[in-house]
Amino acid sequence: MATIKDVAKAAGVSVATVSRVINKSPKASQASIDAVTKAMSELGYRPNAAARALVSQSTQTMGVLVSDVSDPFFGTLVKAVDTVARQHGKHLLVGNGYHNPEDERRSIELLINNRCDALVIHAKALSDDELIAFAQEAPGMVIINRFIPELAERCIYLDNHKGAHLATDFLIRQGHSKIAFIASSHQITDVDERLSGYRDALQEHGLAQPDSYVEYGDPSSEGGEQAMLNLLSKGLEISAIVAYNDNMAAGALSVMEENGIAVPHQISIVGFDDGLIARYVKPRLTTVRYPIQMMAENAAQLALYLAKQPAEADTSPKRYSPTMVKRDSVAGTMAD
Amino acid sequence: MATIKDVAKAAGVSVATVSRVINKSPKASQASIDAVTKAMSELGYRPNAAARALVSQSTQTMGVLVSDVSDPFFGTLVKAVDTVARQHGKHLLVGNGYHNPEDERRSIELLINNRCDALVIHAKALSDDELIAFAQEAPGMVIINRFIPELAERCIYLDNHKGAHLATDFLIRQGHSKIAFIASSHQITDVDERLSGYRDALQEHGLAQPDSYVEYGDPSSEGGEQAMLNLLSKGLEISAIVAYNDNMAAGALSVMEENGIAVPHQISIVGFDDGLIARYVKPRLTTVRYPIQMMAENAAQLALYLAKQPAEADTSPKRYSPTMVKRDSVAGTMAD
Repeated sequence: MATIKDVAKAAGVSVATVSRVINKSPKASQASIDAVTKAMSELGYRPNAAARALVSQSTQTMGVLVSDVSDPFFGTLVKAVDTVARQHGKHLLVGNGYHNPEDERRSIELLINNRCDALVIHAKALSDDELIAFAQEAPGMVIINRFIPELAERCIYLDNHKGAHLATDFLIRQGHSKIAFIASSHQITDVDERLSGYRDALQEHGLAQPDSYVEYGDPSSEGGEQAMLNLLSKGLEISAIVAYNDNMAAGALSVMEENGIAVPHQISIVGFDDGLIARYVKPRLTTVRYPIQMMAENAAQLALYLAKQPAEADTSPKRYSPTMVKRDSVAGTMAD
Repeated sequence: MATIKDVAKAAGVSVATVSRVINKSPKASQASIDAVTKAMSELGYRPNAAARALVSQSTQTMGVLVSDVSDPFFGTLVKAVDTVARQHGKHLLVGNGYHNPEDERRSIELLINNRCDALVIHAKALSDDELIAFAQEAPGMVIINRFIPELAERCIYLDNHKGAHLATDFLIRQGHSKIAFIASSHQITDVDERLSGYRDALQEHGLAQPDSYVEYGDPSSEGGEQAMLNLLSKGLEISAIVAYNDNMAAGALSVMEENGIAVPHQISIVGFDDGLIARYVKPRLTTVRYPIQMMAENAAQLALYLAKQPAEADTSPKRYSPTMVKRDSVAGTMAD
């Protein structure tokens, strides 16, 4: 690969002149610009972005960390951030953290070290303290789907408790009282918040269930299948289920179908997220809408804004509310 | 943010010594290592990856370009590359090209400029010539889902013609003769290859259909809905459909259900990809399996290998074969 020295030699100018041309310095003469441009083209020289970043102290790169980009929920998040990044002429650097502290730490370090000045971070495994330290280092870092009081202005998150409460309350109003919960086995706060929303709604109606009504699995359709099989194996009396997300609900639907359980007439089920799969399973899934696209777009806008003007306060609301989307997977107990 | 000069001052050593410690030079004394490490920690100095890349001429970053990471097909591709990258201690830089030449070019330039030495590139809009030029610049660049004769050793791709031929032939053997095709409206070679596979299979059985049996849409479920509506509007006699991918097939299923068309007994349908959605729609989708995970893992391995030893020839097979996965969306015409 040609070096900057080769270009200087071919153009008959100094390395400093080549550098001035590459960095569009006003000190570069038109003759130098012409000679250097011609030499770079002939030699196939590509001004190195790392070198340019050192000089200009900024890159065209925006960073995003998610748990796993192959999960459609995070795919939607990444695409929303990318859409905003492109509108601002920036490209996206994506890292996977897999809800694991080592992976989350290494990805954030990579993003910061690559001088992404605007960052949207979905980190669930790192401590508040560690994220606060990263945030001090990166003024344009925004946290999505997590609330840290010290970073309140930079956290965009969902009221998870309310989401599960909505779903459970909706089932109770349809006459259900034996309501199970299919939970994610990941050790993240979303799980605790959604479980407490479910438990609080039951409690408020004097319908508290034993812990055996909660089963855990990976937050995927396979994990939902496993959790549903476990629930059925216990022989509990169940008329409705709140699922941690749509993927798990889809897995549960598939197990119920294989076991001849009619949904919604024998067992009703509510999902969470309102992802693409909710509209394509049968019956179509009644679910809790997580407005992740809107939230991710706003997180990206905020990150770009803070990267430029870190001192400015921003007072727009950061906590988003879930809503119910009614489709075909819930029936009233009166209909039996 | 602290600079390397601040670290040198605090440690009482020269900038060159700090640089040697950061880059783990054997010339750094233990006393220097201790003093510099302590100063870096106290000052919160983060050795800049861009600066380190300039010195070591390599980064820990591997690059991948896809069309759209929010499409589950590309999510699977990215995850497979990430899995291999992590096994090699590398992080992933992901770019979206949206099947658009400007976006593909800019993303590849960003990846190369950020010194990703191993690259897996899914580019469909750029010309062969432009990709050959990039490949000359980046010895560790592998092309996925495209064949360029000049880069034969670095192309990992699927026999798309065979996939659509398999699907069409399978329907013909079930007794179908009025077979429509729901195609992607993207201007990429995959579409032409799959369409010609469909047409060749019909031709071989003397069943060629007029062009009205082909409808186009975005390669998403929404695009599949639109294409299916258009097919139905034409009032053609259709007993089976080959879909460009599972997303489009899922959209077509949804339209057929809304229109009271029983699948598979009135109309059979075959998808393409064998993604997650194929197992969760009703009826479960008979489809053509695209072994994208295996292909992406092998592409990542090859890219890492070529980045280290560009001169070595590699003779492993690069063209993969699709296979049929039979589920519940196809019935024989005898069954009517």
